[in-house]
Amino acid sequence: MIRAVVWGENYVEHTISAVAAAYPLGIHVCLRDALNADSEIDALSVTFQEQEHGLPIDLLRETDVLVWWGHALHDDVRDDVVARVHARVLEGMGLIVLHSGHFSKIFRRLLGTPASLRWREAGERERIWVVNPAHPIAAGLPPSFVIPHEEMYGEPFAIPTPDDVVFISWFEGGDVFRSGVTFSRGAGRIFYFRPGHETYPTYHQLEVQQILRNAVHWAAPSGAPWHGIEEAPHVPEPLEQIGP
Amino acid sequence: MIRAVVWGENYVEHTISAVAAAYPLGIHVCLRDALNADSEIDALSVTFQEQEHGLPIDLLRETDVLVWWGHALHDDVRDDVVARVHARVLEGMGLIVLHSGHFSKIFRRLLGTPASLRWREAGERERIWVVNPAHPIAAGLPPSFVIPHEEMYGEPFAIPTPDDVVFISWFEGGDVFRSGVTFSRGAGRIFYFRPGHETYPTYHQLEVQQILRNAVHWAAPSGAPWHGIEEAPHVPEPLEQIGP
Amino acid sequence: MIRAVVWGENYVEHTISAVAAAYPLGIHVCLRDALNADSEIDALSVTFQEQEHGLPIDLLRETDVLVWWGHALHDDVRDDVVARVHARVLEGMGLIVLHSGHFSKIFRRLLGTPASLRWREAGERERIWVVNPAHPIAAGLPPSFVIPHEEMYGEPFAIPTPDDVVFISWFEGGDVFRSGVTFSRGAGRIFYFRPGHETYPTYHQLEVQQILRNAVHWAAPSGAPWHGIEEAPHVPEPLEQIGP
Amino acid sequence: MIRAVVWGENYVEHTISAVAAAYPLGIHVCLRDALNADSEIDALSVTFQEQEHGLPIDLLRETDVLVWWGHALHDDVRDDVVARVHARVLEGMGLIVLHSGHFSKIFRRLLGTPASLRWREAGERERIWVVNPAHPIAAGLPPSFVIPHEEMYGEPFAIPTPDDVVFISWFEGGDVFRSGVTFSRGAGRIFYFRPGHETYPTYHQLEVQQILRNAVHWAAPSGAPWHGIEEAPHVPEPLEQIGP
Repeated sequence: MIRAVVWGENYVEHTISAVAAAYPLGIHVCLRDALNADSEIDALSVTFQEQEHGLPIDLLRETDVLVWWGHALHDDVRDDVVARVHARVLEGMGLIVLHSGHFSKIFRRLLGTPASLRWREAGERERIWVVNPAHPIAAGLPPSFVIPHEEMYGEPFAIPTPDDVVFISWFEGGDVFRSGVTFSRGAGRIFYFRPGHETYPTYHQLEVQQILRNAVHWAAPSGAPWHGIEEAPHVPEPLEQIGP
Repeated sequence: MIRAVVWGENYVEHTISAVAAAYPLGIHVCLRDALNADSEIDALSVTFQEQEHGLPIDLLRETDVLVWWGHALHDDVRDDVVARVHARVLEGMGLIVLHSGHFSKIFRRLLGTPASLRWREAGERERIWVVNPAHPIAAGLPPSFVIPHEEMYGEPFAIPTPDDVVFISWFEGGDVFRSGVTFSRGAGRIFYFRPGHETYPTYHQLEVQQILRNAVHWAAPSGAPWHGIEEAPHVPEPLEQIGP
Repeated sequence: MIRAVVWGENYVEHTISAVAAAYPLGIHVCLRDALNADSEIDALSVTFQEQEHGLPIDLLRETDVLVWWGHALHDDVRDDVVARVHARVLEGMGLIVLHSGHFSKIFRRLLGTPASLRWREAGERERIWVVNPAHPIAAGLPPSFVIPHEEMYGEPFAIPTPDDVVFISWFEGGDVFRSGVTFSRGAGRIFYFRPGHETYPTYHQLEVQQILRNAVHWAAPSGAPWHGIEEAPHVPEPLEQIGP
Repeated sequence: MIRAVVWGENYVEHTISAVAAAYPLGIHVCLRDALNADSEIDALSVTFQEQEHGLPIDLLRETDVLVWWGHALHDDVRDDVVARVHARVLEGMGLIVLHSGHFSKIFRRLLGTPASLRWREAGERERIWVVNPAHPIAAGLPPSFVIPHEEMYGEPFAIPTPDDVVFISWFEGGDVFRSGVTFSRGAGRIFYFRPGHETYPTYHQLEVQQILRNAVHWAAPSGAPWHGIEEAPHVPEPLEQIGP
């Protein structure tokens, strides 16, 4: 059983009526339920407003994959909580960053680059192409699928070269974007997935939900945790015996 | 001075009138002249029909960058000439593969994958986005530019993960493609550039010519040649003295 | 259950007495038995001498991971069998190439480079370091372990930049080598593992056997197969309707 | 002319007599002079103790490549100066990080990982192997060379997968290390080079000086700067006209 935690900013749901209409219980609840439709995933959701943003160290230690959706409150996320999440990713926890989370503190800290991009809200059609059909995150998908209305994100996307580009988006208005990209940092696997503007019902779409479940499976630890990755130990050994 | 050689298949120019109209002297001559507009490049062109396809070993030894355009005659290119080009790339010669050259023997041999893709000839608009604006191959370009009519190439493009994705194309008909990608094999730098369907005047376009010149500069050897890369020498040395 | 096939050249076991002593039933049998110690792996072994080198297409279609040990007979392996294995890797079959298999036709064809290296037979000590402790192939291993006597392989190793460097070897005589490296080609995962010179009992060593079992798990298909990867289909679709 | 700035911590030279003996004018002066032996490089040196650590924004704007040597005072480097250097690297300034600089704020911030490692001070022999002989940073070097006495740095080195591994070190005591690795972040090229423990005269060694000069050439901007990389502009364009 993979233990997933969905972190929701839980703010625009209360300040923009279109968001409340699309996600009456909150984006985090929609995401959580989509994950729990997979019998091998046990997902819960927490929010910005909870103590320690809902991410106490005891919970993170028991989390295999953290899913992050934030937008309006990036700057208000506590630095000590970001540091804690960062440490857990390096140790092996998977991280899935969604949509406007490209500008979250945790994503930028893990990448070392601004993760900036161009954007436009025109409700245009987005077609997502599978670039790497054999990648586990693309399992069960058609060659491409359409999200009827989405915010546009356009290149250049200021990220380090990803390990894999799984999806590239085509936008009706003339733009392209590397919409699904993977990274490894320490023992942690990271997946960024572009879609999910709050005013559209994107996370209710079946292909999107399938991708999220696939990504949780992919990002769950498959090797040993890297305990002590922050430390630089003094090691007399092996000091091979050389000569008498 | 960078010594470039443009290799042209020189066939569809003689069998399809639209190609002859777009490139009356041959695609290879258009490409050669575009390169020679750069005072640091000394380009000549050779063709499939010449002895040894115009690529005797003495010429290849003196070539810094080879540019390859082929389409209809891939299977007729002699295997010994392909092996010779392959060896020179490993040793350090740059290689720029254009458009339908994705299916050339030399490109597939260097990559180890089929380099297959989806395609459609509908004369649609192609918009090329710069994904890595700091890459030398993108120097002097705007964020995006349009080729009014082109053949569509669509993902998935069956290539190994490139070192860099420099350009991604948007097509009017709904497709995307990694249109400018780089690889290193041995000491050689390889750049694949998608545009250039024979029935359109693509290689007359200024942005395209700029990219080709940039690519020749980028692919020219900047380190030492890797002589003897095919050999596996027996080496007693260093065999550090260990013990008495 | 992962279906693994170990391919053995089965030649030096019959021509060199030290090899026969180390592997009385053949290297392939030792490898097969090491894999079958894992209850989730079902391994069988085949040899060069069988019809179609023991690799008929029907068997390959049912194989999840192929393990390859060859040395003296690389040039005698039939090209059509190599092409068949190549196609299956692109489609998704995992491939583990061992030791002198670096010069096998299949490995060089998948990489596009010579895979050359420097070597020395001095029975020296090899210490293998885990460079990526979180990689599934390194699961359960100590930070480093020693193989008491091995052939030396030294850098430069003429391979494309690997996806991951899992192991680096230190040799008593003063050399280093990227001993465990991974690649993806099409839908197939490839792992090269350096140790295993025929005159030493390397494949009887527990750490080595653990790595091989880990690698079979890692290389087994985890996404969809990429059927038709060799084809370039003409696709009228989607050809988004644009304008009237 | 490439404008290089060598940043020196300039501390252990005054607190440890062995360092003062090896570098009577400071490590930064030795490095600066080694760079200035190249007629295409114009290097100056600055130190931690100067105002703004010697790195005012006006100087950084005119700097092509920054070389960083620090060890004892990492935590005392001002965060605003680190942010300024970070921004300039993203914009295109090259950065060369030396030895204990692996733990500098700037290197860790650019990578997103701890850059931790194992270490031992035993004055042991280090042999540096060229893994990628065609890389410009390896130009003019023999296949390997020896530093007679150095501190040991051992794997695992907690960095993201580098773009290129140029050098791997062998240590007498039994360890290995990826001693020369490259990264790209935004428009900036980054090279980490391991050797240079303060109590040994490593930076007086000719091969080491050659590598540093090569690295300055390699890291100098070769494409356009990426101005505004921190910004996410709203872009109505192109918004291709679609339908009436």
